[in-house]
Amino acid sequence: MLLQKQSMSFPSFRLENGTVLTGVNIGYETYGQLNAAGDNCVLITHYFSGTSHAAGRYRESDLQAGYWDAIIGPGKAIDTNRYFVLSSDTLCNLQARSPDVVTTGPASIDPSTGSPYGERFPVVTMGDFVPLQKQLCESLGVRHLHTVAGPSMGSMQAMEWTARFPDFVDRALCVVPSDLAADPYLIAMLSLWCAPILLSPDPAGLLQSIKLITLVARHHDIVRRTFGRKLADAVKDPGLSLENRYWADIGLEEEARSRAHYCDGNSLLRLARAVQMFSITERKDRLRARYLFMPAKSDLLMPPSYAQGAVTQLRELGLTADYFELAGDGGHLDGLHNMEQASEVIRKFLA
Amino acid sequence: MLLQKQSMSFPSFRLENGTVLTGVNIGYETYGQLNAAGDNCVLITHYFSGTSHAAGRYRESDLQAGYWDAIIGPGKAIDTNRYFVLSSDTLCNLQARSPDVVTTGPASIDPSTGSPYGERFPVVTMGDFVPLQKQLCESLGVRHLHTVAGPSMGSMQAMEWTARFPDFVDRALCVVPSDLAADPYLIAMLSLWCAPILLSPDPAGLLQSIKLITLVARHHDIVRRTFGRKLADAVKDPGLSLENRYWADIGLEEEARSRAHYCDGNSLLRLARAVQMFSITERKDRLRARYLFMPAKSDLLMPPSYAQGAVTQLRELGLTADYFELAGDGGHLDGLHNMEQASEVIRKFLA
Repeated sequence: MLLQKQSMSFPSFRLENGTVLTGVNIGYETYGQLNAAGDNCVLITHYFSGTSHAAGRYRESDLQAGYWDAIIGPGKAIDTNRYFVLSSDTLCNLQARSPDVVTTGPASIDPSTGSPYGERFPVVTMGDFVPLQKQLCESLGVRHLHTVAGPSMGSMQAMEWTARFPDFVDRALCVVPSDLAADPYLIAMLSLWCAPILLSPDPAGLLQSIKLITLVARHHDIVRRTFGRKLADAVKDPGLSLENRYWADIGLEEEARSRAHYCDGNSLLRLARAVQMFSITERKDRLRARYLFMPAKSDLLMPPSYAQGAVTQLRELGLTADYFELAGDGGHLDGLHNMEQASEVIRKFLA
Repeated sequence: MLLQKQSMSFPSFRLENGTVLTGVNIGYETYGQLNAAGDNCVLITHYFSGTSHAAGRYRESDLQAGYWDAIIGPGKAIDTNRYFVLSSDTLCNLQARSPDVVTTGPASIDPSTGSPYGERFPVVTMGDFVPLQKQLCESLGVRHLHTVAGPSMGSMQAMEWTARFPDFVDRALCVVPSDLAADPYLIAMLSLWCAPILLSPDPAGLLQSIKLITLVARHHDIVRRTFGRKLADAVKDPGLSLENRYWADIGLEEEARSRAHYCDGNSLLRLARAVQMFSITERKDRLRARYLFMPAKSDLLMPPSYAQGAVTQLRELGLTADYFELAGDGGHLDGLHNMEQASEVIRKFLA
């Protein structure tokens, strides 16, 4: 499935905190066809370090397909023969420097100065991401969302959709999800993701930030399977110098380096705050969507107890909130890369 | 139980990697009396950020007793009416700047230069901590260890004892323990603990390092119970500035700050490497002690699967390896602060 990244520009956009951004660009991609009624759209909302690239490939030569390629496509769980699937980049997208990302954030040019916003870019929230997505939907002729679906930070956007525009969306598929508000542990963890960037604004800080994210999104078992206890260089004795390191350490760092290349530190700081601020707890009375919560059994970052907390509260409101636990030892990342097992459950939820 | 911190000096000590340290000081404390045979000693080995202060108080005014005060004392699980309990500071103790700690490490004066070793201090290992403890034991008249017991990094020292001096020790009590070798996830996590210090050698880096340790040693549930979702300052809207933070973030940082005050970054780097290098896997044939492994159910840092891995391997060798899982929602820290529940199990293990 080859596709083309697209983008849309809006002349201005007013953030929740009152700041008005001039010239907002948002990247997106689509799979399948919008029907005449404009009501067969499944919106995909991406995770913290993700982009709109949920399925398919941009180029024949791409080594990897989009992160949910296992469940989005013709005949797949989110069947592009039936649904118009739309996936967009958030504001302050972390991979701001990737040629495949279109976002407005700290790395963008501030039209009032002609130079990048940098640290002057305002705080953004799920309450900004979602209305911007709604503008995109409406511009594309989408009149109603069949479903909003996303993993991790994407689950927060899905929940925010159901609280902010309860008449516009029928279903929310929340994968490796938050509770109805960001948990205090997660709030603290996100500050620790920011710490290396604040200590060192150069690329070395960003690299350590991405490395920490890379580790805590995994379970012990997959790290052991992937790297083992071996040394990065067998002749360099770790007992002789702190420079002589283990492969689990170096390997995760190299993985982080390959991602950090496209990332922007100031964007990371703002995404972290957006996650910390997420809460629909005060707006529970507005909710009327159907929910499917899908945590991963081995997730240490956003464990099944978060999903269970959300499901309990939604059922207390008399809402339908289904629950399915992903098997696997991949940790939080099972919500991205171990989704095929949930195909039938998702198919039924969408039916 | 009031007690006095003591210390011993050795003119020189040869490390595993061949480096000879001149003038090694080691702090320790004792509870109970050594018997005439010198064989009723229970040695306590401390955790990563711990010290010899396992029980009792140094001063009437001390707010907190030693970390295992619930299980060490007259009539307690490790009964000081029966056992001579000895607990010492490791080399490179993290709290090198505390007046209650005596250690030799990067913050010590290098006699060959008259100034602190700093970055020039060599790598150390569990294989250095344990022989130094043995010298201390022998100097105090201890001829045989009834038990070595320790939480977390202390469990690694206990296991190292049983591999290095199998004739000298009968039992190892391994609380919130490692497997027989440091797990690759733990190896990577320890490098991430070091990262803030390497990014910023000033106190700001050390603070973020200690803050990360402070968080990952806890479970989500206790962080939620302790801090909740409230703001550090209710009138400072987190949507207006990144400076306006949540209490879970600030509160953990303040807790870290109170500990970081006494800590030394170069010591942390060396303790991290000592943990990474821990392995008795290649020396399994030498083992003959009895073991009790005691992980904490809610531990996300060194989960029960580590203990289960160790127990399985030890039983395959025909050794006795008991298993008891600590209940609680405190995470890794339940191995320090939630030990009373294990009193009977420990008492029976020592009997």
